[in-house]
Amino acid sequence: MARTLDSTPAADGYRMPAEWAHHAGCWLVWPERPDNWRLGGKPAQAAFTAVATAIAQTEAVTVAVSARQYDNARSQLPEHVRVVEMSNDDSWMRDTGPTFVVNDDGDVRGVDWVFNAWGGLVDGLYFPWAADDAVARKVLELEGVDRYRAPLVLEGGSIDVDGEGTVLVTEECLLSAGRNPDLTRADIEQQLRDHLGVEVVVWLPYGVYLDETNGHVDNFCRFVRPGVVMLTWTDDETDPQFERSAAALKVLESTTDARGRSFEVVKIHQPGPIFITEEESRGVDSIEGTLPREAGDRLAGSYVNSYIGNDLVVLPVFEDPHDDAAVAAYTQLFAPRHIVTVPGREILLGGGNVHCITQQQPSGR
Amino acid sequence: MARTLDSTPAADGYRMPAEWAHHAGCWLVWPERPDNWRLGGKPAQAAFTAVATAIAQTEAVTVAVSARQYDNARSQLPEHVRVVEMSNDDSWMRDTGPTFVVNDDGDVRGVDWVFNAWGGLVDGLYFPWAADDAVARKVLELEGVDRYRAPLVLEGGSIDVDGEGTVLVTEECLLSAGRNPDLTRADIEQQLRDHLGVEVVVWLPYGVYLDETNGHVDNFCRFVRPGVVMLTWTDDETDPQFERSAAALKVLESTTDARGRSFEVVKIHQPGPIFITEEESRGVDSIEGTLPREAGDRLAGSYVNSYIGNDLVVLPVFEDPHDDAAVAAYTQLFAPRHIVTVPGREILLGGGNVHCITQQQPSGR
Repeated sequence: MARTLDSTPAADGYRMPAEWAHHAGCWLVWPERPDNWRLGGKPAQAAFTAVATAIAQTEAVTVAVSARQYDNARSQLPEHVRVVEMSNDDSWMRDTGPTFVVNDDGDVRGVDWVFNAWGGLVDGLYFPWAADDAVARKVLELEGVDRYRAPLVLEGGSIDVDGEGTVLVTEECLLSAGRNPDLTRADIEQQLRDHLGVEVVVWLPYGVYLDETNGHVDNFCRFVRPGVVMLTWTDDETDPQFERSAAALKVLESTTDARGRSFEVVKIHQPGPIFITEEESRGVDSIEGTLPREAGDRLAGSYVNSYIGNDLVVLPVFEDPHDDAAVAAYTQLFAPRHIVTVPGREILLGGGNVHCITQQQPSGR
Repeated sequence: MARTLDSTPAADGYRMPAEWAHHAGCWLVWPERPDNWRLGGKPAQAAFTAVATAIAQTEAVTVAVSARQYDNARSQLPEHVRVVEMSNDDSWMRDTGPTFVVNDDGDVRGVDWVFNAWGGLVDGLYFPWAADDAVARKVLELEGVDRYRAPLVLEGGSIDVDGEGTVLVTEECLLSAGRNPDLTRADIEQQLRDHLGVEVVVWLPYGVYLDETNGHVDNFCRFVRPGVVMLTWTDDETDPQFERSAAALKVLESTTDARGRSFEVVKIHQPGPIFITEEESRGVDSIEGTLPREAGDRLAGSYVNSYIGNDLVVLPVFEDPHDDAAVAAYTQLFAPRHIVTVPGREILLGGGNVHCITQQQPSGR
């Protein structure tokens, strides 16, 4: 049964494995809030169901759902996807779920970061967020996995590790005013070392343009394997994304990882730009205190926001001219895993994509 | 992952094991409703915590709790008791939880009976009961245990099996007007055969006097081992309980079980009678549609309402002159299991006792 531990993962010999390490399963939260998901969440629920169904081909999937939506989720999802009741404020398991860590014996524990809805009262996306902050603990409790409560505001989408000592982050996010204003950059690096078991923190300046998470790295630049990263790119030098991607490339070209390797950078051209339509905007409840979804707003679409499952990768596509190139790049990068594409637009409309709504639970083997 | 099956346990080679068969664990629900539990449920929560803590000495314990009470339950219960979120209408896992069944290979499945709050709109104890009716399914889903949905209104507290083909029930309960008015006694027997894997149904006329469950057998007469039952008794022939116990004794003395054995009956003298005090009554919210708890009402106290755990038995006691005899009888009946007594009054005030609030999950071995 799950204990809460007073030490840190690194002190106990634990580290976060890369996403491609073997999974015991994957967790999601069922989307429902009508002030973020259009049409009462019905299109998003179909999109989440497609993601859950795809991942369930090669690993166990559990979907956490509020009491109110339990019966509907159970009825929409395939029978072999497990559904458990869990209250929540929204459906971003990457950011509200635990970060699982493992040791050399294959034991698994979980880090429960402080969650404040991507910026708390400074620039957070909704209030309250107490149910979301409790999600990680409830997942660990349910699985009987021991827990570390990290004294750091952080979301799982703001870190990406290679499992060999290196983590990618963005300054835009980890140094944002709404998260840990009393901690220095050095303090935050130390927390990452302590809780992820990494040695080297690679700081990219920014994430994707207009990403409401303050530039989560998982929507922008991620490890494909040790030494190799994929980076959201645009060839359009007039697009505000260009400078951001170029700045990241510059850092990556002048940095080595914890094993002393230089980075191989694979550019993945962004889709779009993609904008919210009038019809899409009309389907979202307008509520004071929640980030509005206005027609014409540019969305932070990205092909980097995928999920690396046991024998497949789930990749969002957008009926966009750049889809084919993304699929081709993934096919090459992730072989022998096969690539399963899912429609990404409905998830993107809520503020993230496939990676943001999933959280892998490593098996430790 | 859990499936819902269209067949029946008996057809698939499954049967309900006796409570003394080895457990993987035990389930409870956290009490909170203020129109049933006095003082906002705080005394009952302490009593449930004592039961959970006792059982957790020799098997894994999970407590299901509403979102609202999650943090409090987590804080009251010992760390090694698992807490999971689950909405509910009240806290009687014996009656709302699944009845687990096993086969000869040690596989475990669950029966999800229809639950209508002990009598539905005829003489049920509260309305609505939809959250309670969903509890069994949620437990099975969470554990990944396959499920049968039985087309029968029944509570786990209204049956008691020896694991060798015989079940005890009461006519007062199973033939009550609020449960299955369209089914004959023969129909109900067939459902019990199909879902419990039994051959012989022993019908006792009544349960305990004024038992609001319409005389659940688990508060009145239960197997100690095959061929041996314990029966709530009173030596006071003027007490309305006397006739009820005598009628049961008469049936038991003239019946044989599925293996052809006559019953050895061990009489356990009831406590009290126990009555609700003014102070206790004042602590309960008065709500139209919920059974009131009035000062002077007699409670259905019984020592039979215990839990047989892996290496112990949890027995409710009442600061009553009959406590010592009950403990002595249990000590002899259940050796080498040790007897752990817990204060039973606060649970009794809510309408049941230790057995009613627990549900064992057999390991199948």
